[in-house]
Amino acid sequence: MKLLESLQWRYATKKMNGEKILQDKLNTILEATKLAPSSYGLTPYQVIVVEDQELKQQLQGACYGQTQLVDSSAVLVFATWDNITEAGVHAYLNEIARQREIPVEVLKVLQDMMIGSISNMTEEQKQTWAQKQTYIGLGFALVAAATEEVDSTPMEGFVPQQVDDILGLKELGLKSSVILTLGYRDADNDYLASSKKVRWTDDKFFVRK
Amino acid sequence: MKLLESLQWRYATKKMNGEKILQDKLNTILEATKLAPSSYGLTPYQVIVVEDQELKQQLQGACYGQTQLVDSSAVLVFATWDNITEAGVHAYLNEIARQREIPVEVLKVLQDMMIGSISNMTEEQKQTWAQKQTYIGLGFALVAAATEEVDSTPMEGFVPQQVDDILGLKELGLKSSVILTLGYRDADNDYLASSKKVRWTDDKFFVRK
Repeated sequence: MKLLESLQWRYATKKMNGEKILQDKLNTILEATKLAPSSYGLTPYQVIVVEDQELKQQLQGACYGQTQLVDSSAVLVFATWDNITEAGVHAYLNEIARQREIPVEVLKVLQDMMIGSISNMTEEQKQTWAQKQTYIGLGFALVAAATEEVDSTPMEGFVPQQVDDILGLKELGLKSSVILTLGYRDADNDYLASSKKVRWTDDKFFVRK
Repeated sequence: MKLLESLQWRYATKKMNGEKILQDKLNTILEATKLAPSSYGLTPYQVIVVEDQELKQQLQGACYGQTQLVDSSAVLVFATWDNITEAGVHAYLNEIARQREIPVEVLKVLQDMMIGSISNMTEEQKQTWAQKQTYIGLGFALVAAATEEVDSTPMEGFVPQQVDDILGLKELGLKSSVILTLGYRDADNDYLASSKKVRWTDDKFFVRK
């Protein structure tokens, strides 16, 4: 399928059939997610990949009982760093230096920009900023799933504190931001599977200048 | 190219060469953007597509002089509705009813959920929520550009009030959220073009459960 056909085929699957997706496909989706850009490249978040059925059942309780949690093959929980600090920036700069085989000192300008940015934000602003970055990752995961012909459901409808507790995110220094379930549609039992995709018409969505 | 190769090829282009992209390619990128999902499907934002060179020059001033504004072929400005109201929800529900050829009354459950959600948010929370949705659209646009072999630069570094003024967004009931320039890399004059892409290693980015 071409990209636009894949994106037309995609929809927010409300009922999945429990079928597992191949690890190959899952890995492609994860790799695409990892390749998403983020502000300064910092990527102040991690992705929790839940395939354990018992954990998925527990997560269902934190997601208002939505069935795609248990009927999916994997649940991706995008979780921001709960503390965005200079130490995180330094760890990232050291990672750039290591991977590019350059001295970290040449990254001084980037370092000053990043630390300048971060030190100007309140804790709440930092979290909002980090959460926005997770939505780019979510976008990449959604497109990659569609091109792999894997169904998915992006979800904001959950109780973050409960998700954090179930997955032990506090201990990992993380906070849940947004969720994506991956699996296969149960088309016969999902009215949305055959519903026309609705978008604002071009004249209401685009402004040409 | 396969999807992952396209995403490896993509990078945040700092220097573009002024070449125009074909309208066909631009339309594919815009269509992919329009197909991005959003919370409840409301899509509380619009995309301003700027190809006018004079406007791009003015935008450069609001973007700390970054050259890709003027050397790009098109600038996409993702802009949230500045006022997210019940009226917006009703307009959306009417659009669903029109496109699916169903009576709007059958959407009562969705209506109650949406209005319940929105009425629980402060103005600031509504804006943050809408901005997050623009980042999914940004993600779709980034992937589509890469698969079309069009270069792009996602940008948070701009003065929103100035961008709003230049594009007359207030009059359109919109507020700038995030920017994406589209064009072609000037690889010889962009050190990033040949720099290794840096990402957290899998053990620091994924948590498997």
